[in-house]
Amino acid sequence: MPNEHGYAVILAGGRGERFWPLSTTARPKQFISLFGGKPLLTLALERLEGVVPPERIMIVTAADLIEPTAEAARGLPTENLVAEPLPRDTAAACALACGLVAARDPQGVTAILTADHLMADIETFRQTLRDSFAAAEDGHHIVTIGIPPTEPATGYGYIEAGESIDTRTMTRFQRATRFVEKPDAATATQYLASGRYLWNGGMFIWHVGAMRRALERHAPDLLPLVEAPSAFHDREALQARLTEIYPGLRKISIDYAVMEHVDNIIMARGAFGWDDVGTWPAVAGHFAPDADSNVVIGSCEMLDAGGNVVVSENRMTALIGVHDLVVVQSGNATLICPRDRAQEVKQLVQRLGRRPDGSKYL
Amino acid sequence: MPNEHGYAVILAGGRGERFWPLSTTARPKQFISLFGGKPLLTLALERLEGVVPPERIMIVTAADLIEPTAEAARGLPTENLVAEPLPRDTAAACALACGLVAARDPQGVTAILTADHLMADIETFRQTLRDSFAAAEDGHHIVTIGIPPTEPATGYGYIEAGESIDTRTMTRFQRATRFVEKPDAATATQYLASGRYLWNGGMFIWHVGAMRRALERHAPDLLPLVEAPSAFHDREALQARLTEIYPGLRKISIDYAVMEHVDNIIMARGAFGWDDVGTWPAVAGHFAPDADSNVVIGSCEMLDAGGNVVVSENRMTALIGVHDLVVVQSGNATLICPRDRAQEVKQLVQRLGRRPDGSKYL
Repeated sequence: MPNEHGYAVILAGGRGERFWPLSTTARPKQFISLFGGKPLLTLALERLEGVVPPERIMIVTAADLIEPTAEAARGLPTENLVAEPLPRDTAAACALACGLVAARDPQGVTAILTADHLMADIETFRQTLRDSFAAAEDGHHIVTIGIPPTEPATGYGYIEAGESIDTRTMTRFQRATRFVEKPDAATATQYLASGRYLWNGGMFIWHVGAMRRALERHAPDLLPLVEAPSAFHDREALQARLTEIYPGLRKISIDYAVMEHVDNIIMARGAFGWDDVGTWPAVAGHFAPDADSNVVIGSCEMLDAGGNVVVSENRMTALIGVHDLVVVQSGNATLICPRDRAQEVKQLVQRLGRRPDGSKYL
Repeated sequence: MPNEHGYAVILAGGRGERFWPLSTTARPKQFISLFGGKPLLTLALERLEGVVPPERIMIVTAADLIEPTAEAARGLPTENLVAEPLPRDTAAACALACGLVAARDPQGVTAILTADHLMADIETFRQTLRDSFAAAEDGHHIVTIGIPPTEPATGYGYIEAGESIDTRTMTRFQRATRFVEKPDAATATQYLASGRYLWNGGMFIWHVGAMRRALERHAPDLLPLVEAPSAFHDREALQARLTEIYPGLRKISIDYAVMEHVDNIIMARGAFGWDDVGTWPAVAGHFAPDADSNVVIGSCEMLDAGGNVVVSENRMTALIGVHDLVVVQSGNATLICPRDRAQEVKQLVQRLGRRPDGSKYL
């Protein structure tokens, strides 16, 4: 049963550079269609079926991404797509989300969700969301979804789990006693061993009243964003108001700005196979390798090549005698790097951005 | 001074696969423009300036390559381009060349030259040609140009040099006592150490009378090709006649068919920096490497990458942490292989040819 006050706001304004050249500034990660031939954003919407109806799903994205967003979000009312004039990290987006939902339903309970992750077990994800709506609807608690770690990852923030809460739901809830930043390797190993730390997957569920109070207390500079949607029901007027507000906002995450300071957060255990598919090797993990451990998406001919991840859009890739490489042909560029250095794509893209002719490849 | 009976026939019907994907069936090696922005065939023509005038230069190529050949050979009379209906190796092409020149000038002295090699020292090449014309014009000898070997190469045939001949020319001539096939590594090392063996560069200079006699004796089945151009002065009639003759011809090289059996061959020492640019690393040898020993032709961004050969046509290549690779982006394909396995491109292309959709990449 969908919660009658349940809303979802998907934050889809990201500009991740780790999937260049398949993803670009104009086609960030949430629009790449590697999985089932559908953009990650479309999959994020499909995951909400049976939990939140389309008319109560909103997407906050960047002004210049409205078109691909609308394309990936067919079935959503156009007025549910809202453009941020400037990127100001998740705190601003969450405050705006709070305002958007409050303007429609003062009892609204909102799930803040990501646009570019995968969940292996969608039914469990849906159940976790339903249980989180139930846990958040009285407005006493803000719910976050913690991801049980599978490795000592240093690329995520962690949330310390405190005492269990008897919610009588399928989903297990615990108090969130502490938000911690991306740890070093030794600390991450301790966290994993302790069993008390979960990954911060960036998903929150809150009653608009609870969120508003948290913002009032910890980030009052963001309140104009909460108020704008009620004050400006006309879409264009709202966008004009946002254009006034955004330049003056801090760039800060909702974790830093609010969640770390709030003491009534509870954490749902998100045991649904969350994957942020952060690098090319992570993408490869979702495909069956060939006999030589190559994962090929697209057209590729190989001679004595093994362990490679090949994405070859519209063109063909030919490999001879190379191993454990990531090779991505897309648009007007080709990337080649060892699998274990795929995270350095980011640096390369940044350097490219400083080249006089670099922008035509980004 | 150009020899007044001097002709040149460039054999330009090759289909080398070693430069795929830059070279393709429709654009073989002689048309790739890596050096000075000009096709190798154009460079082969430019090398003849001052030695053979354009009206006495002919090109024998394949029927379907006439268009790019004409493009690369602007300045040559159209009637000097002759199309072989089928590829039948160099013996047929040389017999046809003999007939083409004989039809114009019974005293013609013809240099058979290649379309897809480079010579570092063009002036010495020209002098070698002039001296070879002089040595061949009396019709007593067939001249071949031997290349002083710089390494124990196993990819070329060799010619054994006998006693020196006092020609009073800048070019040194010796008797060619033996043609030998591509040797194994041990034999090649012996050849190099002996100083008596030169590489067979596939260049010959002969009086049409001498060549005709050699064909009469050793390959009489090729005589119809020698006779066709005199019998059919009309271009279309000649092509029609060739279409009759070619299907019945053996596929055999001029070395096998004739030169190995002829005892009046003398060899000019071709000390002009001949290079058959047979592989991608050989191409790289003609360009100045960067500080990390990379050779880049086109657009490339690198992060901790060294020793690579990158050809990036119209698109950009990005390398992170890879070393000693050959990377070629061209048309609708990209090749990646270690430098020392570049010769395996040939196998890959052959495999590709057997794929149902392979032809669109060849």
